[in-house]
Amino acid sequence: MSFDFTPFFRDDLPGPAKPWGGFPAYNFVGGHSDAASVPATALSEALAAVIARDGKLLANYGIGHGSQGYLPLREYIARMLEDRAGMATEPGQILVTTGSLQAMDLVNTALLNPGDTVIVEDVSYGGTLSRLRQLGVGYIGIPVDRDGMRMDALAQVLAELKEKGVTPKFIYTIPTVQNPSSTIMSVERRQTLLDLAGQYGVPIFEDDCYAELLWEGARPATIRSMDDGGQVIYCGSFSKTVAPALRVGYLVADWPVLSRLMPLKTDGGCGALEQMALAEYCPAHYDGHVAALRQTLKGKCETMAAALAEQFGATAEFEMPKGGIYIWVTLPEEVNTDRLTQLAGAQGVAINPGSEWSADADAGRRRLRVCFAHPGHEEIRDGIARLAEICHAEFGVPVRGANVAR
Amino acid sequence: MSFDFTPFFRDDLPGPAKPWGGFPAYNFVGGHSDAASVPATALSEALAAVIARDGKLLANYGIGHGSQGYLPLREYIARMLEDRAGMATEPGQILVTTGSLQAMDLVNTALLNPGDTVIVEDVSYGGTLSRLRQLGVGYIGIPVDRDGMRMDALAQVLAELKEKGVTPKFIYTIPTVQNPSSTIMSVERRQTLLDLAGQYGVPIFEDDCYAELLWEGARPATIRSMDDGGQVIYCGSFSKTVAPALRVGYLVADWPVLSRLMPLKTDGGCGALEQMALAEYCPAHYDGHVAALRQTLKGKCETMAAALAEQFGATAEFEMPKGGIYIWVTLPEEVNTDRLTQLAGAQGVAINPGSEWSADADAGRRRLRVCFAHPGHEEIRDGIARLAEICHAEFGVPVRGANVAR
Repeated sequence: MSFDFTPFFRDDLPGPAKPWGGFPAYNFVGGHSDAASVPATALSEALAAVIARDGKLLANYGIGHGSQGYLPLREYIARMLEDRAGMATEPGQILVTTGSLQAMDLVNTALLNPGDTVIVEDVSYGGTLSRLRQLGVGYIGIPVDRDGMRMDALAQVLAELKEKGVTPKFIYTIPTVQNPSSTIMSVERRQTLLDLAGQYGVPIFEDDCYAELLWEGARPATIRSMDDGGQVIYCGSFSKTVAPALRVGYLVADWPVLSRLMPLKTDGGCGALEQMALAEYCPAHYDGHVAALRQTLKGKCETMAAALAEQFGATAEFEMPKGGIYIWVTLPEEVNTDRLTQLAGAQGVAINPGSEWSADADAGRRRLRVCFAHPGHEEIRDGIARLAEICHAEFGVPVRGANVAR
Repeated sequence: MSFDFTPFFRDDLPGPAKPWGGFPAYNFVGGHSDAASVPATALSEALAAVIARDGKLLANYGIGHGSQGYLPLREYIARMLEDRAGMATEPGQILVTTGSLQAMDLVNTALLNPGDTVIVEDVSYGGTLSRLRQLGVGYIGIPVDRDGMRMDALAQVLAELKEKGVTPKFIYTIPTVQNPSSTIMSVERRQTLLDLAGQYGVPIFEDDCYAELLWEGARPATIRSMDDGGQVIYCGSFSKTVAPALRVGYLVADWPVLSRLMPLKTDGGCGALEQMALAEYCPAHYDGHVAALRQTLKGKCETMAAALAEQFGATAEFEMPKGGIYIWVTLPEEVNTDRLTQLAGAQGVAINPGSEWSADADAGRRRLRVCFAHPGHEEIRDGIARLAEICHAEFGVPVRGANVAR
C-alpha cells in the first residue's frame, strides 16, 4: 500500500511537475541557444588546463575560495563588466549563482513578503511574474516603448503608490534587450529611472542577462554603473552568451546587500567545473565568441522575421529586434494565443503565450514570444509555416501566407 | 550617500555573511575531502570524452534531458544504488540536486511550516538543525548508541506526540556513518524504524551522504530499500565520495513526492559539466576510487585517533569510527567547546563545537567534531597537539599529553 504524502505537503505548493516528454519538433520556447555556437570543446580544454593547475581545490567546499564563488571567475566577471558595460566592479561585490534564476530567488527571498508590491515592465520575463505570484506579491506593469520602460508612466505610478502609503520593494527591469520586447532602455531613461528611484527611495533590480547579445549599436552602460549609492542590485548570466546548461549567473551588489543575500544561498556553492572552465576560457575567448554568436543570432532573427512576414503577412506585427533571441509578436484581436499555444504544442510547435509574459495577462492574449536561437533556419521556416496553418485553421487568420490563400 | 536597504529586508533573515578569510592552518571543520584523492584529471578527461559526443546538448536548458537532471547520470545513480545499497531505483525516481543541501532544502520547503515538529537523532548534522531553527520548526532528538537511533526512545516519543495530537512532519536520520557520531544503524533497527513510521504514519527522510565511506563491514541496505510504500525520501551525494566542490547530490522518491519537490527547484537545473563528467567517469572508475578513498580515510582516522590519545589521553573519549570523515569527541565536564572553538580558531585550529551538532545544545557543550579527511597526517598531529595546549591553558585539561606534564 502506498503511503499518502498529501496531508504532509504545505498548502501553498505549486502544482506537481509532469514527467519530461522530450523537446518538440519546432522549439521556439525557453531560452535555448544555438547548438553549433556553444564552445563545448573549448570549455572542456579550458577545464583540462585549469584542473592541471588547480584540480586539488575540488576537495574543498567553495573550491577553496569561500561562498561567493571561484575567485578567478569573479575577477574575470569584474573586468568584463568594467570593460564591456562600463560598470566598475570588485570581485568582492560578486556572488556566483546557479544561473540568474537563483540570483532572482535570492533577491526575492531577501526582500519580499506576501502582500508586497513590485514594479515591472508591463511585458516581462514570465519566470519573474510567476515567481511573484507564487510569493503572493503584487506587481504593477509600466508600459514599454522602443526606448524601454516609460518614465512618465513610472513617475505616475510611484506618485500614486506614495499617495496610498505604499513603497514598492523594488523596480524590476531588463533594460537592455528586454524580455520579451527586445527593447533597449535609453541612457536618458536610465538616469531618470535612477532619479525617480532615489526620489521615492525604491531599490532597483537590474536583470541584464541579454545585454551582451546586442548586434546593433553598443551595449549601453548599466543602470548600476550610473548609481553611486548602491541602490541597484544587478544580475547577469553566462546562459545566453556561453551555454544555458552551465548554470552560471551572478549577482552584483554592495556588501551591505550582498552579505544579506549570501546566507540565503544554502546550497554549499555552485558547480566547480563550470566556474573553473569559464574562468579559464573567457579571458582569451569570450569577446570573440560573443561577437560571432551575435552574427549567428542576427541571421536567425532575420530568418524568423522573414518567415513571420511570409506566413503571417500584416497579421503578425512586431518590432525588429536589435539583439537577443526573441521576437515578440502581436496578432489580431480574434486570436487567443493561450489556445494557439495549446493547439500548436499538440502539433509539435512550441511557443510562449503572451499572457504569461504580460503583467496584465488579458492584454497579452493576442501576443506570443518566439525564440529563434535554438532551431535551425529550415526549422524556423517550417515551424512558422505550420504555426500559421494552425492559427488559420482555428482563428481564420492569417488569410493569406506565402502568396497563397489558405 | 549610500542607500539604506535595512528597512527593505525581511525581518526573519539570518544575520549577514562575513567576508571570506581563507582556510585556517589546521582545518578540522566542514566536510572537505582528501585533496590527493580527488580524481580531478580523470574527471576532466571524462568530460572531454562526453563533450566530444554530447557537447551540443549544452545549448539546452536541462542538457536536453528535462528538469530531473542528465539522464546518463541518473541511470548510473540508479544502477549504483541497486548494486551497492540494495535499493531498486528507476532514473525517473531521481532528481539531481546542487549537493544534498539543496535536496534537503527542497524537502524542507515542501513539507515544513513554522511550528511543525521533526524528529532527529539527538546528535545530528549542524546544517540540518540550523535549517530547522531558521524555519521555526521544532525538533526532538532521539538518543543514539552504537547501533544508531534507539528505537525504544523513538517509540516513546512517537507515542507521547500522538497523545498530544502531534504528527511529526518526518523522521530525519543519517543511518549509515551518522554525522557526527559515525554510528551505523543496525538492520533490525531499520526495520523497526520503518514499522514505527508506518504505525504512526510519519514519513522518513533518509540522509545517506556518508554511507559509501564505510571501511569496516558492508554497506547496509538503505531504509528506503526496505520500504515498499514510498514512505521514505532518500538523499545521497557525490560530495564525500568524489569531490565536495562538484555540488552534485540527488533525491530519490516515488513520483507522487518527487513531482511535488521538482517545481520547488527553480534554478533551471544543476551544472552540466559536473553531471556529464560524473556520468562518464563513474561507470568505469567509481568503485575502485571509493575503495582506495576508504583506505586513505581509514589511515587518517587512525592518525587522528592516535593524536587524540597521545595529546588528550583519557581526557578525550570517543568511539573509533568504522567509516566516514569525523571523530566525535567528549571532553570532561569543565570544558566548554563553544569557548574552545573560539580560542582555537583564533590560533588557526578550526573545530566544530558539539553544541551546533546536538539537538540539545547544552548537552553538546563538552563535545566537539573533528574532520580528518582534509588535513595531512602531520597537520593532524600538529593541530591536535596545539588544540590540547589551548584546551589545557583555558580549562586545565588535558593535564598530561605526549608523556609530558603541561
